[in-house]
Formats: sequence, structure tokens, C-alpha cells
Amino acid sequence: MRNKWVKWLIVLGSGLVIALIPPPEGVPREAWTLLAIFIATIVGSIVQPLTGSAMVFLGVVVLAISRAVPIERALSGYADKYVWLVLAAFFISRAMIKTGLGHRIALIFIRLIGRKTIGLGYSLVITDFILASFVPSTGARSGGIILPIARSVTETYDSRPEDGTAERLGTFLMTMLYQCEVILCATFLTGQASNVIIRNLVAENSGIDLNYSIWFVSAIVPSLISLIVIPLMIYRFFPPEVRETPNAVAFAHSELEKLGALSRAEKILLGVFAIVVALWITTIWHGIDSTVIALAGIAILLVTRVLDWRDLMAETNAWEVFIWYGGLVMMAGELGKTNIPTIFAGTVAAATGNLSWPLALGLIALVFFYAHYAFASITAHVMAMLVPFLLVTVAIGAPAGLTVLMLAYFANLSAGLTHYGTTPAPVYFGLGYVTQKRWWTVGLIASIINIAIWTTVGSAWWKFLGWW
Amino acid sequence: MRNKWVKWLIVLGSGLVIALIPPPEGVPREAWTLLAIFIATIVGSIVQPLTGSAMVFLGVVVLAISRAVPIERALSGYADKYVWLVLAAFFISRAMIKTGLGHRIALIFIRLIGRKTIGLGYSLVITDFILASFVPSTGARSGGIILPIARSVTETYDSRPEDGTAERLGTFLMTMLYQCEVILCATFLTGQASNVIIRNLVAENSGIDLNYSIWFVSAIVPSLISLIVIPLMIYRFFPPEVRETPNAVAFAHSELEKLGALSRAEKILLGVFAIVVALWITTIWHGIDSTVIALAGIAILLVTRVLDWRDLMAETNAWEVFIWYGGLVMMAGELGKTNIPTIFAGTVAAATGNLSWPLALGLIALVFFYAHYAFASITAHVMAMLVPFLLVTVAIGAPAGLTVLMLAYFANLSAGLTHYGTTPAPVYFGLGYVTQKRWWTVGLIASIINIAIWTTVGSAWWKFLGWW
Repeated sequence: MRNKWVKWLIVLGSGLVIALIPPPEGVPREAWTLLAIFIATIVGSIVQPLTGSAMVFLGVVVLAISRAVPIERALSGYADKYVWLVLAAFFISRAMIKTGLGHRIALIFIRLIGRKTIGLGYSLVITDFILASFVPSTGARSGGIILPIARSVTETYDSRPEDGTAERLGTFLMTMLYQCEVILCATFLTGQASNVIIRNLVAENSGIDLNYSIWFVSAIVPSLISLIVIPLMIYRFFPPEVRETPNAVAFAHSELEKLGALSRAEKILLGVFAIVVALWITTIWHGIDSTVIALAGIAILLVTRVLDWRDLMAETNAWEVFIWYGGLVMMAGELGKTNIPTIFAGTVAAATGNLSWPLALGLIALVFFYAHYAFASITAHVMAMLVPFLLVTVAIGAPAGLTVLMLAYFANLSAGLTHYGTTPAPVYFGLGYVTQKRWWTVGLIASIINIAIWTTVGSAWWKFLGWW
Repeated sequence: MRNKWVKWLIVLGSGLVIALIPPPEGVPREAWTLLAIFIATIVGSIVQPLTGSAMVFLGVVVLAISRAVPIERALSGYADKYVWLVLAAFFISRAMIKTGLGHRIALIFIRLIGRKTIGLGYSLVITDFILASFVPSTGARSGGIILPIARSVTETYDSRPEDGTAERLGTFLMTMLYQCEVILCATFLTGQASNVIIRNLVAENSGIDLNYSIWFVSAIVPSLISLIVIPLMIYRFFPPEVRETPNAVAFAHSELEKLGALSRAEKILLGVFAIVVALWITTIWHGIDSTVIALAGIAILLVTRVLDWRDLMAETNAWEVFIWYGGLVMMAGELGKTNIPTIFAGTVAAATGNLSWPLALGLIALVFFYAHYAFASITAHVMAMLVPFLLVTVAIGAPAGLTVLMLAYFANLSAGLTHYGTTPAPVYFGLGYVTQKRWWTVGLIASIINIAIWTTVGSAWWKFLGWW
């Protein structure tokens, strides 16, 4: 209880301190109030006296009460098409779980390549890869599809967290899955929900549109290398005791037998999946908005009764994300309309003007990456740091294209550092197969490898693509 | 299943027929497509191959796919402050049920005036009156608060639907409660959710702002008369067998004893209730937006933990209404921007130009009222008929103020006609205390009385207030 009061004090304090500082020359009072409320909201969604989305809701309300932003504009985020893209994708992910299609895909890959432990891991990573191509809900992917299967298989090898048998299989598997999950988050615009916010912020502050295909093409080369190197590193330095997993294949066989042929719902979902992803990838040709594509997919699932309307309305997590993102997107947009970001970037750039841009970009990217130790969500990290870091780096002279990609991907990769870095982290960690020490050690080593891959191979690939 | 196909055919057919008619001179193609989709959506929310809000969602999606309205504007209803007012009020109603405050209010009134059957009825109506002043969710009011108590009391008199004892008490009570509920719907802007849509449509098409206090002041005189006359009519012509209900008072006594003193949560809610309603009533003086006031109320309830954030996110009904209204408000707004309503009103007015306006208004109001036999929701009724009827009547020369009030109140009162007229109707009817014949007979008689009161006393009162 006392703890709660301290949290509220920190949140209110952070806002009040800024509000009480006189605004810099040329910054209007309302813009400054907006900044104070924005920062209090970000602090609130980190400290969490109430859950993150509730804090954002409160931020929106305070903004409207203060009249720093009129109510009509304070609610505008809830009509934002990127926010609706996320909501739509959460609804689609419901279908993945409900029809059991995700489950089936995982089983098929296990049957195919699950004979060795590393293959078993990869069969789940490949499933996650396919899912990440259109399900941004990491909670649904890992909690709803990957983890239940991973646990069942681990159980068949009597590897359990509670009786000292975790190292047999579970520790390795959970570590590998989470580290790959983070790479997959970076690989797709739909890798996790706040990538859509990154797209939005980047478009507003640099004019670059990281659409679905651009995001994926730029990521795939360093991503594939990371997806090969990181699991091998874990396998080499933290090997599982069980290295062959024929039981997993047997398990997949019998489960698939039980499932039988593809159901009508699964077939329809597969069709919708194919159409939606195909249309997303080909946006440059037909120009249909990606949100419209996703909404049309849901419409098909509703009309064919693959999805039930009540299911969607009861998707508590989807609504939380909706309130959260709608508020944050609005605040970031409103803040971007003020002159505060430019003034800030100009000031910092002037102070560090004698640094060459590669050095400046390198330093800034590193600070940006390791700052994630302080964040419990990619969203909070992105909202707090992306825009100022982007503006400063560009002001110093770094190529906008290179900066944008590096920050976008680092925002995701950095979530691998801790056991609270992004939504599924506490889920994987909470199972108890991995000690915190192991988790953080792997996270740190993986972070170094990822940074090395994405700055060298990544930069070269982006140079080749003409980004800088 | 076959039934479903017929329903889809009707919905698609209604849209296609309009889309295939060439648009009248001067109406752009997109505006005409918008009209076709709008009408298909309204038909869909009446015929319901899927539930109403799902049909509206589909309408929004089809609109965006057809590019009749671009996606940015197609989603704009979800940032509409009136839509958020409804959402906010649904959230507040959660607190009424959760804290038990609504329950307690009802018990207090029963203890006070529940000794006779008619007093018992009124004690629940007064509770509903208080609730309607800020809880627009008729489902929450009747299903969550009024009905559970009404049923408990009815049970203590061994009046049950199944064993021929319904007439003893239940039939009278349920009939009276529902007919009064409908009058209360008309009495407050927060009487039921689509009043907010009425406000919106009226403002856009006549420039008149039916805000909270204007709505209430204009309604209260005819409303009080209806609230006296209708129950007496029912009591006179369809009397209960039990005319004294001391058991109800005893029940209220013991229940209140069990409840004990006001809890902390109830006190806070009472405070929020008082502040919100006071601020709503005094809007003309301080100018704070009514949505901001409601959102601030929720913020207080969240911070004080009277409401739990997860409760709100799990409020399935609130989200359904949100999707429903956000879509409809957007469609009505977009349609209002086209020249279709003016052309339509001009054509009809020209054809009936020789009618005097009182006759025209009378006829139109009657058609508007009894058209509700065809509607299963006030929202659908309002969306389909309010704007054209309003425009035509005004074009014929009727005073806008008078027309607006009459249509606004009739839209609510007409819901008393059937056992499917508005959300709580099937709830009350479904208990089985009242036969359909009785329900419809009472509904018809009440409709005549209501029309008589609201056109005579109502018109005089509105003349006195300067509306015409």
C-alpha cells in the first residue's frame, strides 16, 4: 500500500517538476503542459501504480481536463488507422488460437525436424516466424500457441522446473525460444504491437514509411543470421542434457493424428492468412491500406463464423492495447506538432556538434539499446526515447534511413536483455526453467552478438538496399 | 441455417438495389455508394444475420474497402466525443453494480414507500429515475439493479411465471416497470445510449444542441405526468391481485441491515455521481465538455480503486456499444456531409407542400412513432428515420425546435410498444410474467396516452420555454 503511494508520488512528481520549470523561449504554455503530462504518462507506464494502459487512459483524461489538448483531439488516437491495425491483428490472433491452426503448424514442424533438441527448438521458432508475419500479439503467439506445446514436450522428457530437472531440456528450450522471439519481433512490422507505433513515429519525424514489406526486406538478412547464431551460441555454451528428442516427434505424430484433417475453420483462416499477408506485401502495387486489409480479413472470419463477435468483444487484452496505443499515438502526434522536439534536438546537436556522425550514431544506438534494462515494455522504451534520439542523430548528420532502421530494430532486440523486457518475457521466465542469472547472462551475450550482426551485416545490407 | 442465408440476402440485396439505381442528378457516385452501404447496415442491424454491432463493424469495413469513405474518416467515429460519452457512462454503470450502491438505493425507497403494490412499483421507478440521470446503459439499470430486486420481492409473494401465479404481483410490476423505463429513457440525455446519437444528429442537421440540461428541462413536465398516468392506467385496467406488499418492506429492512453502513467505495461513487451530474447540469456556466466530465469521473473511480481497470476492459457490452455507435455516428456524419438529405427533404416537401405544418408534423410524428413496431432498437429506429423526418418536417415549415423535441422523445416512448422495442424489453418480457397479448395491449394504450400527453402538455411546455 505504501509502495503504491510512492509510485503515485513519482508519477505526479515527474509531471509537476516539468510543469513548474518555465518553458524554454518560444515554447507555448500548452505545449509545455502537454510535455509534462506526456512524461508523467511514460513514467506512469514504467512505474505502474495502475497497469500501463490505465495510466495512459489517465494521461488522456488529464490532458483533456488541462485543455492542453482539446477533447476532440485527445481522443483522435482511437481513430488512428495504425492503432486499429493493432486491434485488428489482435482479433485475428484470436482466430489462430481458437481454430487450433497455430497449434497444428507447430506440430507439423516438430514432426518434420524435431528429432534433435536443436531441431525441436527450430520447429517452434519457425512456427513463431510464420505467426509473427501477421500476429503482432506476442502474448497470443507465445502464451497461446508456442508455450503450451513446448511445455508438453518438455514434460515428456521429465524436465520440470521444480525438481532439479530443468537443465535436462526446459532451460535450453525456453532460453532459445525467448531469444528467437525477440529477433522475430524485430523481423516483421507485425512482430510485436509497438512496431506499428515505431512506424508512426518514424513517418512523422523523418517522412520515411517503414511499411510491411520495407520493414521485412530490411530485416530479413541480419535476422536470419541472428536466428542461426544465437541458438548455436546457447547450444554451445549452455547445452541441454537431452540432445535427441524422438519423443517430441512421437508426440507430434499422435497429436496430429488426433486432430485429423484440416477443419473448415482452419482452411478459411489459412485462406485469410494468405490473402492478408499477400496484400500487405504487395501494398506498393495496389495501394490498399494495410488496416483495411486486416479489417477485411476479420470481416471474412466473422461472416464465415470462424470468429464469433462476442469473442472479439471479450478480448480484454486487445482493448487494453487499444486504449494504451490510442492514447500514446495521440500524445506523440500532438507533441510532434509542437516545436519542442526540434528545439531539443537542436540543442543536443549543437553541444555535440564536433562528433563525427558514425561515432555519434554508434554511441546513441548503444545507449538506446542498453537503456532497455530500465524498461518493462518495448512500447514505453520507444515512446520515451525513439523520437529525441532519432532527431538528435539526424541533426548531427547521420543518414536518416540508417538511423531509423537501427533504432527500430534495436528497440526490439534490446528486449532480450531481461526477464521483463517485453510481454512474453515474464511468461517464459515465470515458468521457472531458467534462473535469473542464466537469463541475464544469455541476454547480455546475445545482445553483443545481435549488435555485432545488425551493425555490420545489417548496415551493409541497408547500404546495398540504398538506405544510406 | 437457411434462415441465415435469407437474412444475408436481404441485407446485401437492400444495399445492391440502391447501389444499382443511378444516383439522382448532382449526387456524386461515392455519396451514393455511402448511402447504399448505410442502408444495408441499418437493414443489417434490424435483420441481424450477425448481432447489431457486428453488422455496423462490417458496414465500416465495406465502406473503407469501397473507398466511398477513406479509412482515416471511416474510423473517425471512434474518436467522437459523444461515442466516448456513452462508453464512459457504461464504465460508470459498472461501478453502480459493483459497489452495490444502486441496489441500496432501491432498497431504501422500498422501505420508504413499498407498503402498497403501487408504492413498491414507484420505489423501483424512482430508483431507475435516479440511475437514468447518469447511467445510459438500460441493460445495467434494469438487468443489473432493478430486476433482481423486483424478482426477489415477487418471489416473497409466491408470484411466479410458471405456476399460474404471475397475475398475483409479477405481471403488474413488470408491466409498470417497463412502461416507466421507456418514459425515463425519454427523460434524460443519459436515459439510454442512443439519445447521445440523437443529440449528435440533431446538432448536425438543425444546429440545435440538446445538451444534458436542455434535454431534461424540456422533458420533465410531460415526463412526470406520464409517470403518474401510465402506472395508474395499468393499475386500474390490469390490477394485481396483491395490493399490499408489507413483505417487500420487511425484505428491504433485512437486506439493508445486512448491507450495513455505506462502504468506502459507495461513498466515493456517490461523490463522483454528485459531481458529474452537477457539472453536466451546469455546463453552460463552466463550459467543460460533458465527455471530459464523465472521463474525469472514471479517472477518480480508477485511482481510488472503486473501479478496477480489468473490469472495464472486460465490459463486453460497453465495447459492443462503442463499435456500434462509433460506426453509426461516422456514417450519419458522412452522409450529412453529402447533398443527399437536402435533396430528399426538398423532394418530399415539394410533393406535400400543400399541407399545413401542424398537420404535416402530426402525421410525420405518428408515422415515426408507430414505425417502431418494425424496430428492435431505438438506435436503429433513430438512425434510419430521424434525419429524413426532421429535414422533411422543417422543409414543410414546422418549427425546428418543436420538431426536434417531438422526434427525440417519441423515439424513446415508442419503444414501449413491443416486447423487443429496446434492450431491456426482452429482459423484462423474457421472465414470463406477462403474456405477449397483455404486453402489446398495454403498450398500445400507453402509446396513445403518451402521445396525448407529450403533444398537448409537452407542446405547451415547449412553447412556454420558447422552443417554438
